[in-house]
Amino acid sequence: MALLRLKPLPLTAERFAPYGDVIAAPAAHGASMNAARFDRYTNLARVDADTDAGISIVRSRTPTELPHRFDLVERHPLGSQAFIPLGGFPFIVVVGPPGESIDPADLRAFVTNGSQGVNYHRGTWHMPLIALADGQQFLVVDRASGDGNCEERHFEQAIVLERPA
Amino acid sequence: MALLRLKPLPLTAERFAPYGDVIAAPAAHGASMNAARFDRYTNLARVDADTDAGISIVRSRTPTELPHRFDLVERHPLGSQAFIPLGGFPFIVVVGPPGESIDPADLRAFVTNGSQGVNYHRGTWHMPLIALADGQQFLVVDRASGDGNCEERHFEQAIVLERPA
Repeated sequence: MALLRLKPLPLTAERFAPYGDVIAAPAAHGASMNAARFDRYTNLARVDADTDAGISIVRSRTPTELPHRFDLVERHPLGSQAFIPLGGFPFIVVVGPPGESIDPADLRAFVTNGSQGVNYHRGTWHMPLIALADGQQFLVVDRASGDGNCEERHFEQAIVLERPA
Repeated sequence: MALLRLKPLPLTAERFAPYGDVIAAPAAHGASMNAARFDRYTNLARVDADTDAGISIVRSRTPTELPHRFDLVERHPLGSQAFIPLGGFPFIVVVGPPGESIDPADLRAFVTNGSQGVNYHRGTWHMPLIALADGQQFLVVDRASGDGNCEERHFEQAIVLERPA
């Protein structure tokens, strides 16, 4: 069986809609806030959790080089999970549609433009987060307790995540 | 009556504890995540809301110069409100203890170190957000609906927010 290879496409809200939300402010003006000192882009994503949600930070300790082989995806059945880069850098996500099972052929890879964050909807399959450089920080907004909130699937054959075009 | 002047002190978790949480990752290693690819600093703040919470972005349209005179503070009785800078820049907050009333003499001003975010606890009085430069973006995590969630107090005399030391 030939190796399954995934080449990341540029992330857009349309492409990502089956899996979650893209968190980014458009260039156009948003709603005026605080005596017009700010443009506000409200509820780019909803925080979905069956109990309290928390705000966390993760920082890259060991960056991942592409191409990257992986054989594991996970999903969170009890809430959404958002990752927002703190500092403006691109990152890569691999996602699959929610559901009990996941066929590797249904996985899709996306690369962000440096200012985009993502919010995985409850149940969306995804590759565990990787970072392309050391020290990169992501803000995470998800269910405060991880108890019972992570299902994993191991594939028989590794998938090759390639460099973006 | 002499003008009340506030000089921002460097923000620390200890100083901010009566008002909310400081959202920042310490330099030391955190919990290992994703096969030790990341350090994770979990639940630096809790998302507190009586209904759904949302993730928004605000972008500075008109920066504020210091010294800055203000005569208005607000609080959110139905949930917490977090502001996290996207890109590493300092900002200034003015806060007062939760409660029905607020005495201007109880206000405190803090300046962040560029990587810190803040989470106002439910009911904490605060000056509406200002930014020190154009185009700065903050991630906001708060109650998705603003209905009934903003109380304002106008002071008879303006307060002068000075430059940090």
